[in-house]
Amino acid sequence: MELRYKPEELTKLPRSVEFKDGRVFIIDQTLLPKEFKVISLNTVEEVARAIKTMQVRGAPAIGATAAFGLALLAHKSKAKTKGEFLSEFERAYEALKSTRPTAVNLFWALNRIKKLVEEHGEESLETIKQLIINEAQKIANEDVEANLKMGHVGSEILDKGSVLTHCNAGSLATVHLGTVGAVLRVMHKEEKLKLLWVDETRPVLQGARLSAWEYSYDGIPLKLICDNMAGFVMQQGLVDYVIVGADRIVANGDFANKIGTYSLAILAKEHKIPFFVVAPTSTIDLSLKSGKEIPIEERAKEEVLGCGGCKIAPDVDVYNPAFDITPHKYLTGIITEKGVVYPPFERNLRRLFGL
Amino acid sequence: MELRYKPEELTKLPRSVEFKDGRVFIIDQTLLPKEFKVISLNTVEEVARAIKTMQVRGAPAIGATAAFGLALLAHKSKAKTKGEFLSEFERAYEALKSTRPTAVNLFWALNRIKKLVEEHGEESLETIKQLIINEAQKIANEDVEANLKMGHVGSEILDKGSVLTHCNAGSLATVHLGTVGAVLRVMHKEEKLKLLWVDETRPVLQGARLSAWEYSYDGIPLKLICDNMAGFVMQQGLVDYVIVGADRIVANGDFANKIGTYSLAILAKEHKIPFFVVAPTSTIDLSLKSGKEIPIEERAKEEVLGCGGCKIAPDVDVYNPAFDITPHKYLTGIITEKGVVYPPFERNLRRLFGL
Repeated sequence: MELRYKPEELTKLPRSVEFKDGRVFIIDQTLLPKEFKVISLNTVEEVARAIKTMQVRGAPAIGATAAFGLALLAHKSKAKTKGEFLSEFERAYEALKSTRPTAVNLFWALNRIKKLVEEHGEESLETIKQLIINEAQKIANEDVEANLKMGHVGSEILDKGSVLTHCNAGSLATVHLGTVGAVLRVMHKEEKLKLLWVDETRPVLQGARLSAWEYSYDGIPLKLICDNMAGFVMQQGLVDYVIVGADRIVANGDFANKIGTYSLAILAKEHKIPFFVVAPTSTIDLSLKSGKEIPIEERAKEEVLGCGGCKIAPDVDVYNPAFDITPHKYLTGIITEKGVVYPPFERNLRRLFGL
Repeated sequence: MELRYKPEELTKLPRSVEFKDGRVFIIDQTLLPKEFKVISLNTVEEVARAIKTMQVRGAPAIGATAAFGLALLAHKSKAKTKGEFLSEFERAYEALKSTRPTAVNLFWALNRIKKLVEEHGEESLETIKQLIINEAQKIANEDVEANLKMGHVGSEILDKGSVLTHCNAGSLATVHLGTVGAVLRVMHKEEKLKLLWVDETRPVLQGARLSAWEYSYDGIPLKLICDNMAGFVMQQGLVDYVIVGADRIVANGDFANKIGTYSLAILAKEHKIPFFVVAPTSTIDLSLKSGKEIPIEERAKEEVLGCGGCKIAPDVDVYNPAFDITPHKYLTGIITEKGVVYPPFERNLRRLFGL
């Protein structure tokens, strides 16, 4: 497929995460939309903390950031022997791996580098360090390339219309452009995006804080709604597509995504609105058979008891799952950098990997 | 039906709105849950403002408060002639009527008093004033009595289980006990309420601020969730009933309630969970044929751009409908003070009124 646009023709935003001059730079997403600030992370611990506290979030962005965490170690390590370095590497790998449980891209990126290190165990320490740094850069660059492809693939199969999205699967959730973000940006470039409905996405408000900010930054026409308004907007015929990202897609097409996605999928089905996921193949985890096997992260009750820094509720019991599982039966198709996967997902996802 | 409990056996809360010593007293709901404060309203304008700004909200509570607004006028008026008083009355009626458009109880209560005044046009000014005050008290007392009945009726037809509710149709939404609130309180009293799931109900957070507060005040076991978590909670089999209030029920059983109710109704249907409305017959408006005719209030964009006093989103476009319409096909039954109405609603709602 011909790629009609370059990233810089689709967004004014810089990359969300970069590794340069021996440091990891991220846009601190906890400060948005009040402040658009790039911060530097100088140790593996700082990288792990940034992932845990969601200064950087979004499955592909987490993957690239974790990879850069290992690159940072490779750049900074003062280990004198290979053995010493490899045990530092192992500690960093474990620290980064334990930051968040649901998104598979984190494990995918870390394991990709770990495997490379294992395969090149005979090389010199310096060579191994350079391989790690190069691989991390490659992971980030491939993410941008995959997004660019998904954007083109998505815009090709979608007609002109209004789109509803949830959470943030935009440029901020990836290295650049976004997964859903790339599709929306190519649609907008080609004048096919009538209106973007943005779910605010409680409790952490990735929709209100991040999607509303980044899409309006790029001039995309949008309306922000509370999560509970999506059904009513659909009832009025104002939504042509629901398009969301994914944190993990398993062998049968079930997928984990930000809490609220499952409800949206049911609402889309009831209103006969096509429901698409946009995700790179690095989000696909064929090792799990069904969505029931995906671990769901529960986060602190304070996220629900408060909102944007204000306390909103009395101190009662809370349930705060960060993700939910949407069964594949609600899914129209999965837009990947290798093309669109339609049902039957079990067969067609395997085919995507040449299995 | 035998009423097994008195209001004071079901709740520790006082009435939400009262008229005494020539003043209207309300619990200021905008201060909850931080502060539980009763304020007095001393003019019709103050009463109208309290309704508009949602210091008092909830369809039945609005109805009673508006009636007390007219009682306040009757108590305070210095009009020397009946003609002078009747034009004051007309102005007060219009001011109160224009506060909020969706809930029918407001118009029902105001019209009930207006009709009474018209029917007794030949009486003395003092008699008319006293009739107004008495009728307003009667409206409030009838609301409590209706709630008590609905509570008993509801608990009788529901099995032991967990309930999910939206917004606040509790004591705070009525004069006392609540509509849904009465059902939950009788269930709790009879040890039939395993767990109450409380939707936070963005943007104004009536669930997080009011329901979570008033039900935990009465010792009811509950968990607070964000609106977008309801589907996932249902998927896990943790909800046996969805029970909500209504702001207006029309002839075919379609009804308006707090935004998000329609989405919940679809989610309940998908999970085969019974979906009940609890509302007094004063909420039923047979003059409208279908939900499409109910006017939906749109509120200020600031409600969506902020949350609990904090700004959460950049200054983008917003859609902020305060209510949505749920078609009757999603509804299992309507619990009223006169019994439960089941489908076909068009016929059975008419029967409720002896038509």
